[in-house]
This record gives sequence, structure tokens and C-alpha cells, in this order.
Amino acid sequence: MFDLYIANKNYSSWSLRPWVLLKALEIPFNEHLMPFEGGFGESHTTFKRFSPSGLVPCLVDNDHNVAVWDSLAIVEYVAETHPNVWPQAREARAWARSASAEMHSGFGALRDECSMNCGVRVAMNELSPGLNSNLARLDALWQEGLARFGGPFLAGERFTAVDAFYAPVAFRIQTFNLPLSEASLAYVQRLLALPAMQEWYEAALKETWREPMHEEETVKHATLLSDERAIG
Amino acid sequence: MFDLYIANKNYSSWSLRPWVLLKALEIPFNEHLMPFEGGFGESHTTFKRFSPSGLVPCLVDNDHNVAVWDSLAIVEYVAETHPNVWPQAREARAWARSASAEMHSGFGALRDECSMNCGVRVAMNELSPGLNSNLARLDALWQEGLARFGGPFLAGERFTAVDAFYAPVAFRIQTFNLPLSEASLAYVQRLLALPAMQEWYEAALKETWREPMHEEETVKHATLLSDERAIG
Ligand SMILES: N[C@@H](CCC(=O)N[C@@H](CS)C(=O)NCC(=O)O)C(=O)O
Ligand SMILES: N[C@@H](CCC(=O)N[C@@H](CS)C(=O)NCC(=O)O)C(=O)O
Repeated sequence: MFDLYIANKNYSSWSLRPWVLLKALEIPFNEHLMPFEGGFGESHTTFKRFSPSGLVPCLVDNDHNVAVWDSLAIVEYVAETHPNVWPQAREARAWARSASAEMHSGFGALRDECSMNCGVRVAMNELSPGLNSNLARLDALWQEGLARFGGPFLAGERFTAVDAFYAPVAFRIQTFNLPLSEASLAYVQRLLALPAMQEWYEAALKETWREPMHEEETVKHATLLSDERAIG
Repeated sequence: MFDLYIANKNYSSWSLRPWVLLKALEIPFNEHLMPFEGGFGESHTTFKRFSPSGLVPCLVDNDHNVAVWDSLAIVEYVAETHPNVWPQAREARAWARSASAEMHSGFGALRDECSMNCGVRVAMNELSPGLNSNLARLDALWQEGLARFGGPFLAGERFTAVDAFYAPVAFRIQTFNLPLSEASLAYVQRLLALPAMQEWYEAALKETWREPMHEEETVKHATLLSDERAIG
């Protein structure tokens, strides 16, 4: 059985990726939620106890004496024993891996300026050039995948790891009301409607932890409209 | 046969990763070197002709109608048909994938403040806190791998994808003379001595393209000592 270490569901976009993949594929795991202990980097010492890099997510496979300390490495580790993680067809799989890796190391403006804060709704004051160019690329990439592999998911009929890699973007688009093509916005709605995404979202709303640094980031380039979260 | 698109050998750290892996594993490919057309992002339009993200490296597999546009995705794509790409043992493979993914999305200060410029030697004026913390993590990670899997490579006896992922760091350490433990510096020397690394280095020295933005980055926090490159 896998043990998956994650942080706050409201904030931790990297944690969501393997979590939603395991849930959507009905792969059993024990969840260990370790709340952030302050701003970026502040949880390093605590997270180090189970994750060699001091970051989450981290998947521990006790049967094999293995700790896998990065979202993309977790996906590949799980794929070794679960053939549904990636698309079956070689061409779709190569596309899905490229698109996942592009998210893993790219889309810096989107990740910095629209950090995940599931329960909040804001209006962006202005879209920076970097964010606009990230959104143009995102839209082109999603439309290409949906058209080429026939949808409703990015690489075809089934939800696979590439959808998991873009799952946090769905929450960001909801929070920041970001402009995208109709086809891409419909894909966002399909992601948000998945039972695994709803389960994560409901749990995020129930969290009462508030991290000032994360909260300030959310309204750095935006104006608060509403907060759907429980009051602590 | 694979077609691998890369940029300048002197500068392009992401290009080096799949290139050195294919060379070290003796996997044949056609090399297409597309020189940068200016500073960061300036080559986008040209690179778009063969790479969907406008970035290199990009691997094209014409036999299967596939373009793979990210270094880590390329490694996984090649691993599907070449079992030597990752270590054989599950535990070493999980470690190697985690360490490669950590490099793929991390070590920001090392990548920004010590960008690859193979032919140049400089003295760092000062090590920033971010760079110091990157170096501490790098050293811990390398020492862990070398001790746990017995060396001489990061995940054991053979050169695998995780060594390819850290290959650009070897050139950076040479250029910026960065402080590391003896065990890590010995590993750097082993990487630099590999025939594939020497072939890349010799070709980098012969290049006469000079990109002002890359050259300025190199001496942003450092003083120039020497330049081994050919004069154009
Ligand atoms: N490349 C890593 C990124 C992981 C990461 O940045 N995790 C953040 C949370 S989303 C973290 O653990 N931060 C620790 C802290 O802020 O102290 C991955 O893909 O797993
Ligand atoms: N995450 C990508 C990063 C690729 C990347 O940033 N490539 C740089 C060169 S090393 C590039 O193509 N830059 C284009 C430009 O500067 O116009 C990968 O791992 O392949």
C-alpha cells in the first residue's frame, strides 16, 4: 500500500497532482496531510522527516523500501505497476509526457501570479505579459490535445496523468476567472466536475488554516470577491 | 532513427541532457543544432518550427509520428524502448527518477546564477544564500546516491538518465569553481572525463557564436578568469 504525504488541500498544487491521479484511477493509498508551517520554505524541517527534498508530495512504498519525492517521479513510479496512468497509444503517451513535463518545469507566471487558493474568488486587476503568454500557450496546448486525441480528456477518452498535471490549473482558472477559449473552459468544467476533484475541493473548503504569505499572494495582482471557506 | 534538436553546445544545458544520454548509451540519432537567435525567448519563432513549446531539446521519432519536446519526457520516451536508460533495480530507479525530477523543476539559484557557459572560467564574487542552499542540497543528494548505490555513478555502476540530468552541473562547477565535498568533486571529474562529455565540450569550444545575454549572465556575480573558446 502507498503512503502519500501532501500539504493543505486549499493551497498545495503539487500535492493535488498525484492525489487526484490515484483517486481517479481508484488506486488505494493512505493520505498523510501535513499542514504548511508558514510561508514558502518554512515547512522544510518538518517535511524532511519523510521527504528527502523537504517538499511535498512524497510517496512512500513501504513494501519496496522506496520514497519518491516529486510529483512527476511519483507518476512514473506508479505507472510501472498501473498501466492506466498514461495513455495506451505510444503517440498519445509521448504527447502526454511532454505536456506534463512542460507544466512541471514551466508556466512560471501562471504559477507565481495565480497561485492555488481553491476556496477564494478574485478579479485580476491586470494580466501581465508573462501571464498572457502562459495562457496563450496553455490554450493552444489543451486545444491541440483535445482535438488530436478526440477528448473529453487531454490525451483521449480516459483521465490520465496529463490531466492530473493540469488539475491545479482548473482551480486557478476558477479562482482568478482567467480568460481562455470555449473549448478550454469546457475542459476546466469537466475537470472540476470529477468526483475526485470535488472531494479535494470540499476538503479544501473545510480547512481553517490560513497562511498569510499564500493569502497575500492571491490578492497581489487581484481584488477579493468572495471566500467560500469555513471560518476557523 | 531519432532526430534530436538542440541549441549551442556552449550554452544549452537542457540540450546536453538527452544528447549525452543517447551518446553514452550508444543510441544512434541525427543531431540538429539550431543556434540561439539572441537572448532568452528570442528563438521561440524558429524553434516552434520543430518544437511545439518553442524550446529545445526536442526529439522527433519519424517512425512513429512523434515529437517529444522536453528533456525529461525525451528520457522517458527513449526508456520505453531502451532498458538501460534507468537503473535496473526498482529502488535505484525510483531514486534516480526523483533526483532527475528534482533537477528538472528545482535548483533555481544554481541555474540562474551559474548558467552554463562551458568554455569560460570565472571566480564567484560571493555565493548568495539561495545558491549556498542549492549547493548543500546538491552535495547531500549526490553523496546519498553514491553511498547508497555504490558508485561510481549516481545510481550505481552504470551511467543512467540521472547522471545525464546532472551533467550540466559538472560544467557549471568547472566554470564557476563551486565548492562541494571531495566525494562530489570526484564525481564531477568522472562526468567530465566521459568520452561523450569530452565530445560535447570540444564542440562547445569550437563554437564562435557569442550571445550577449548569456555572456553577461556569466559575469553577473563573478569575475572573468579565462576563456578557452575559439576566436570567431
Ligand atoms: N517539483 C516538486 C515541487 C514540490 C513543491 O514545491 N512543493 C511545495 C508545496 S506545493 C512544498 O513542499 N513547499 C514546502 C514549503 O513551502 O516549506 C514536485 O513536482 O513535487
Ligand atoms: N523544461 C524544458 C526546458 C527547455 C529550455 O528552457 N530550453 C531553452 C534552452 S536550454 C530554450 O529552448 N530556450 C529558447 C530561447 O531562449 O529562445 C526541458 O527540460 O527540456
